[in-house]
Amino acid sequence: MSNSEAVELPVLPDGGVAPCCPPITAGELSRADAEKMAAMFKALSDPVRLRLFSKIASHPGGEACVCDIADVGVSQPTVSHHLKKLREAGLLTSERRGTWVYYRVAPSVVAAMAAMLDPRG
Amino acid sequence: MSNSEAVELPVLPDGGVAPCCPPITAGELSRADAEKMAAMFKALSDPVRLRLFSKIASHPGGEACVCDIADVGVSQPTVSHHLKKLREAGLLTSERRGTWVYYRVAPSVVAAMAAMLDPRG
Repeated sequence: MSNSEAVELPVLPDGGVAPCCPPITAGELSRADAEKMAAMFKALSDPVRLRLFSKIASHPGGEACVCDIADVGVSQPTVSHHLKKLREAGLLTSERRGTWVYYRVAPSVVAAMAAMLDPRG
Repeated sequence: MSNSEAVELPVLPDGGVAPCCPPITAGELSRADAEKMAAMFKALSDPVRLRLFSKIASHPGGEACVCDIADVGVSQPTVSHHLKKLREAGLLTSERRGTWVYYRVAPSVVAAMAAMLDPRG
C-alpha cells in the first residue's frame, strides 16, 4: 500500500517533473519513495564525494574530467569509486571523449532533491 | 586554508542566513563545509529515518510526539535512535511536555540544505 499515489511530484524550474519523490512535508513517504530518496542523500553523505561533486558543479562549462578534479587528497581509485557512486545515484552523467571521461551534474535530479526538502523554493 | 570565505551563504526564504554552507555550484567546497554538509545529508540517508522525518514534517501543526510516529515497522529503541540522529544533525528540534517529547522539523536547516543543492530555488 503506497500512500504517495495521491501526492503530486514537484514541478522543476526547467518545467520537468522530478524523477522522484513528493515533498517530505506532503504526507508520509511510502517505503518505495523513502528508499529512493535515501539512496540519493546517501550519495552526498561523504565529505570527499561532496567536494568532488562541488568541483564538477562549479567547473567552467559545468563539466569536468577526472584530470580536473582529482586533487582532493585521496587516491585515483578512490576518486573513481566516488564518481561511480554519484553516477549510480543519478547525480552525475558521464561521457567518454577521447582519453578522458567527462562528468556533469544532472541538474534536474539536484533540483528535485532540493524541491523534496523545500517545496516553497 | 578555507576557500569558502569569499562565498556568501544563501539567504533563506524567511530572511535568515543558512547555518551552513555555500551552494555547491558556487565553488569548490572547503573541507570544513564538506564535513558539515555531509553530516546533514547522512542524517537523511536512511529510509526509516526519512519516513520518520516526513511523518513529523507532515503532521498537523508541524510537530509530533513519538506516540504519533512510532508505526514505521521498527522497535521503539530504533525509533529513538533515529530521532536522536536527526536531532544531532540539527534537522529536528525537541521539547518535553509532560510525559512526551514533541519533535518539530527545523525549517531553516531544511531550507538551507535545499538552497545548497539548488540556489535558484
